[in-house]
Amino acid sequence: MPRYKLIVAYDGTGFHGWQKQHPPDHPPLRTVQGVLEQAVMETLSEPVSVLGASRTDAGVHARAQVAAFSTTARPRIATERLAGAINAHLPDDVRVRRVTIADAGFSPISDAIAKGYRYRIAHACGHGAARPLFDRHITYWTPYRLDPDRMNEAARRLIGRHDFTSFTRVHHNRQSTVRTIHDCSVTTTGPRRCRLDVSGDGFLYNMVRIIAGTLANVGRGKTEPEAVADILAATDRRAAGPTLPPEGLFLMWVRYGK
Amino acid sequence: MPRYKLIVAYDGTGFHGWQKQHPPDHPPLRTVQGVLEQAVMETLSEPVSVLGASRTDAGVHARAQVAAFSTTARPRIATERLAGAINAHLPDDVRVRRVTIADAGFSPISDAIAKGYRYRIAHACGHGAARPLFDRHITYWTPYRLDPDRMNEAARRLIGRHDFTSFTRVHHNRQSTVRTIHDCSVTTTGPRRCRLDVSGDGFLYNMVRIIAGTLANVGRGKTEPEAVADILAATDRRAAGPTLPPEGLFLMWVRYGK
Repeated sequence: MPRYKLIVAYDGTGFHGWQKQHPPDHPPLRTVQGVLEQAVMETLSEPVSVLGASRTDAGVHARAQVAAFSTTARPRIATERLAGAINAHLPDDVRVRRVTIADAGFSPISDAIAKGYRYRIAHACGHGAARPLFDRHITYWTPYRLDPDRMNEAARRLIGRHDFTSFTRVHHNRQSTVRTIHDCSVTTTGPRRCRLDVSGDGFLYNMVRIIAGTLANVGRGKTEPEAVADILAATDRRAAGPTLPPEGLFLMWVRYGK
Repeated sequence: MPRYKLIVAYDGTGFHGWQKQHPPDHPPLRTVQGVLEQAVMETLSEPVSVLGASRTDAGVHARAQVAAFSTTARPRIATERLAGAINAHLPDDVRVRRVTIADAGFSPISDAIAKGYRYRIAHACGHGAARPLFDRHITYWTPYRLDPDRMNEAARRLIGRHDFTSFTRVHHNRQSTVRTIHDCSVTTTGPRRCRLDVSGDGFLYNMVRIIAGTLANVGRGKTEPEAVADILAATDRRAAGPTLPPEGLFLMWVRYGK
């Protein structure tokens, strides 16, 4: 029973997130998982279950989500042609970038050892003339002027092994809230543009969007970079900044062990 | 009676072009001019007529369209605050970048002495895995591999004063089809990405999109760069390449004399 690993990119704007949802008394919502399973089924003429490394929320994008599915028989389509065949059945807001053969037991979720996310920010104070236009679906906009260097100072203080209770929603249902952040930085990418890049061994629910909201507070002078230690120590959601909206967030990559 | 000059940017995806349209037995179509007139009217509490330099087609974008309107009395909002005030009444796919005072007789159309357009192309051969995703609304995609250097060779041959009958649609309703192209070039902008930049004293209907289609034929080897002279000399629409779709096209700037 061959198992395939997919690298998938999507514009999250038109999706109710990654995970399939069948609310009662409602037609199924449009999700990336649902659309992908449909396309793979049409390609292989066989129902499949597509598992994704990260269950991205509604409106969140991915440059390289990792997914996997198994088939009962080796398909008649060569592996190197499978991406093209599946793409022919996909709408233009999802693209399969690559398909490779995986180990029979490969799990995109539990085999993942690290993930990287990016959060794109436009900070144009004033009357909105400089508000993002052509990339407004993939950029968070704030009318406050931000100081990316100050944000970066705060970002560096999140690196390491910490309890991230302050950076997830109150009812998170996770056994442990301790995670290791490998890297966390804020870079200026243009006039009134910056981005947050954060990677680590795992992320709690809304964690990157709350980190982004906390750093935005630092950027506009509401919070000091040094306050990050206190916010972590508080282990209280109210200590951190707001959860920024999904449109700025990208799942950039997922890393696997040998 | 003060007259104002506006610099306007818009994502053409959701618009039926620039010009107001009221088809019979149909609600008015969503156009940039219509949306702008509505926003200015809400800002000044006075109906205005907004004239644009270029009547861009449905789906065509603008980075700096130039528009103008007159008011009966000087508005109570200072000129430097007018852009912000109008933007507050605009949807997020149109932005007024700047508002300045113009001469009473200023005409964005007849006072224009030059215009610049850009056409963005992604050329990824094969199975569509490299097809544009996050910028698919502002990029034309062709599954053929193009040679931008060859296209540039052909583009240079369009510079100068020529009869562009081959590069406009058959029923163009223009007295003269002679135009002067000041610059025309194709640049590689990334892996499998290029763009056409063209400027001149005026453009015929669909002219940039037919130039782009003709150069794309050169890029994929269907036409020789040297054939441009023959295509011009033919003064026959059938001699040129196809009209490429609107999503790749941007009005970049409009220049005015002293």
